[in-house]
Amino acid sequence: MKKTYLAILFMTLFVSQVCLAQANQPAIAEDFKPSTLNQPGQIYPQVNSQGYVRFRVLAPQAQSVSVSLGLGGKGGTILSKMEDGTWMGTTEGSMDEGFHYYHLRVDGGVFNDPGTLNFYGSTRWESGIEIPAHDMDFYALKDVPHGNIQQILFPSKSTNTSRRAFVYTPPRYDKAVKERYPVLYLQHGWGEDETAWSNQGHANLIMDNMIAEGKIKPFIIVMTYGMTNDTKIGGLRNFDILPFQTVLVDELIPYVDANFRTIADQPHRAMAGLSMGGMETHLITLNRPDVFSYYALLSGGTYKPEEIKDKSKVKLVFISCGSRENPDRVKNAVIELNNVGFNAVSYVSENTAHEFLTWRRSLLELAPLLFK
Amino acid sequence: MKKTYLAILFMTLFVSQVCLAQANQPAIAEDFKPSTLNQPGQIYPQVNSQGYVRFRVLAPQAQSVSVSLGLGGKGGTILSKMEDGTWMGTTEGSMDEGFHYYHLRVDGGVFNDPGTLNFYGSTRWESGIEIPAHDMDFYALKDVPHGNIQQILFPSKSTNTSRRAFVYTPPRYDKAVKERYPVLYLQHGWGEDETAWSNQGHANLIMDNMIAEGKIKPFIIVMTYGMTNDTKIGGLRNFDILPFQTVLVDELIPYVDANFRTIADQPHRAMAGLSMGGMETHLITLNRPDVFSYYALLSGGTYKPEEIKDKSKVKLVFISCGSRENPDRVKNAVIELNNVGFNAVSYVSENTAHEFLTWRRSLLELAPLLFK
Repeated sequence: MKKTYLAILFMTLFVSQVCLAQANQPAIAEDFKPSTLNQPGQIYPQVNSQGYVRFRVLAPQAQSVSVSLGLGGKGGTILSKMEDGTWMGTTEGSMDEGFHYYHLRVDGGVFNDPGTLNFYGSTRWESGIEIPAHDMDFYALKDVPHGNIQQILFPSKSTNTSRRAFVYTPPRYDKAVKERYPVLYLQHGWGEDETAWSNQGHANLIMDNMIAEGKIKPFIIVMTYGMTNDTKIGGLRNFDILPFQTVLVDELIPYVDANFRTIADQPHRAMAGLSMGGMETHLITLNRPDVFSYYALLSGGTYKPEEIKDKSKVKLVFISCGSRENPDRVKNAVIELNNVGFNAVSYVSENTAHEFLTWRRSLLELAPLLFK
Repeated sequence: MKKTYLAILFMTLFVSQVCLAQANQPAIAEDFKPSTLNQPGQIYPQVNSQGYVRFRVLAPQAQSVSVSLGLGGKGGTILSKMEDGTWMGTTEGSMDEGFHYYHLRVDGGVFNDPGTLNFYGSTRWESGIEIPAHDMDFYALKDVPHGNIQQILFPSKSTNTSRRAFVYTPPRYDKAVKERYPVLYLQHGWGEDETAWSNQGHANLIMDNMIAEGKIKPFIIVMTYGMTNDTKIGGLRNFDILPFQTVLVDELIPYVDANFRTIADQPHRAMAGLSMGGMETHLITLNRPDVFSYYALLSGGTYKPEEIKDKSKVKLVFISCGSRENPDRVKNAVIELNNVGFNAVSYVSENTAHEFLTWRRSLLELAPLLFK
């Protein structure tokens, strides 16, 4: 009897749990639309108003197709074969708002989704999807004056090649030929490259919109490859900042100052980076306090007050992350900096993780604080 | 006896044919190297000194993997499964020098090769491979002063959006603030977009190298999307040039003239296009003889003398193609134009087809003839 009672109790609990779980799952809204990052004419993947993503991939003779995107810890989304030879599936829940990288696994091989545009992350061009964010207006393409993004190839003696960087020049830069501008050096994260901040980050559109609304004074942004993706033995554990510091400080900055109308001094130069780019920002700003006066780490660690030798040289320390990262660490670091008299500001992006919506929003918060 | 004799004869012929075929195939040189267009760290695909391409793709549970690249008419290259779960194969012969698009077919689905960079062609981002050309020096990245490629977003009332274009500004453009420059409007082909001429074509490097060698006077190049990829019913057969002509002539050109230091008149404006972009160049130059004075069609048709109303307005007609296209048609068209007094020049790229090496070389030939 006891056993039976326990069995019934267990079954009851189990069944009620299942019911609860189902009751907690909202019905999937059948209002899926093609992702805004799809290749021209492609109708899949699609996103619904709840942030679910639905995939469809043609591979009639495949044995298995899955997608790396899905709820945390569940290893992605497994697609099912349809009668027409396509494989379909929907994420088990809502994805966070903003941009996500993903890829397909087809019969054990890793491929990109032929439906979407590719973005450089994880040291490869990955598929990308965008879950419309409630605040997406700030990085939208609008009918406002637009700045340009220039690809430059600058000589680098230390690496014996011409290296690529992208330079955002604000609207009217080409006309206002007597004006000079401060510069933000803005770094991508590990696995990414110098294309990330404009492709995934929309840094140019964020700037254009803020300038159009009069929220900031125009400045230049320079984005180059942070040399963080060395996958040889040792990898990031043995990462040596000096080669990149040389490229950035001794080669790129003089080139930019010689070829663009910059205000070429420390008070008008900022450095910021996301993730690994934050680590680079941290190291380089401390090594070369004569070069930058504004420091910003986006999901990229913190500064301890004792690390900064000359407080008078630092105009701002900005530290941010997503609420799903470690916001307390960010807030506490800023409190410590404030306590000893630094102009330090923290920002936590609500309901985002270690992803690009965190960093788009961080740029939105950071830009008005620069070059005051 | 007769039957046996015939059987032996047949077998002899068959065997000798097989031997002949094998004798005609040169031994494949085992000096394969990773393609220059591979993603960082990827060792496949590889190219050997004879222009053979070897592929390797991981897909352990796949039933079939093939590659669209291969000798004409053979439908590509079929890969074989190796013991380690990869699929490998080598093209049956040498590929033409230069750039080629391709894709994989995995179990009936079309995917890109995860080993290579992607390039926009066939209205999708495709895999790309580069067969080193004997004359590749002219589009190589060298230690010379480099111009920039700027992404601009220009307002377009006729299409109710901000449209993207890329603007090549020559070295020293930012410093020579009193200098003004002629402009070449340069169009991609069907299936491609405004990224093609810099990504696949290396237009910027071709210009940088020619300027460094003093072969040409610097000019600006503007590349925008030719709106040629409408895949709706009718497609190209019903292609109407007017929407793009409006964007180009009435919206983009005034924007470029207002925002860059151009010489904003007809004698200092050229239009060129490859393939479908040649068709657009043909139509727009004839419709608007007041706008351009240099016309160039690269694998993109010809002009008949009687089409051009006012000979005095045309400074140059340049017509080119690859030797594997229809070179006689190109040469004859130019002879006809010369016969009635046009300054017309033909160019045939040796041992190339309807592909980017033809167009890189065409730009190399065209540029010194412009803006004299």
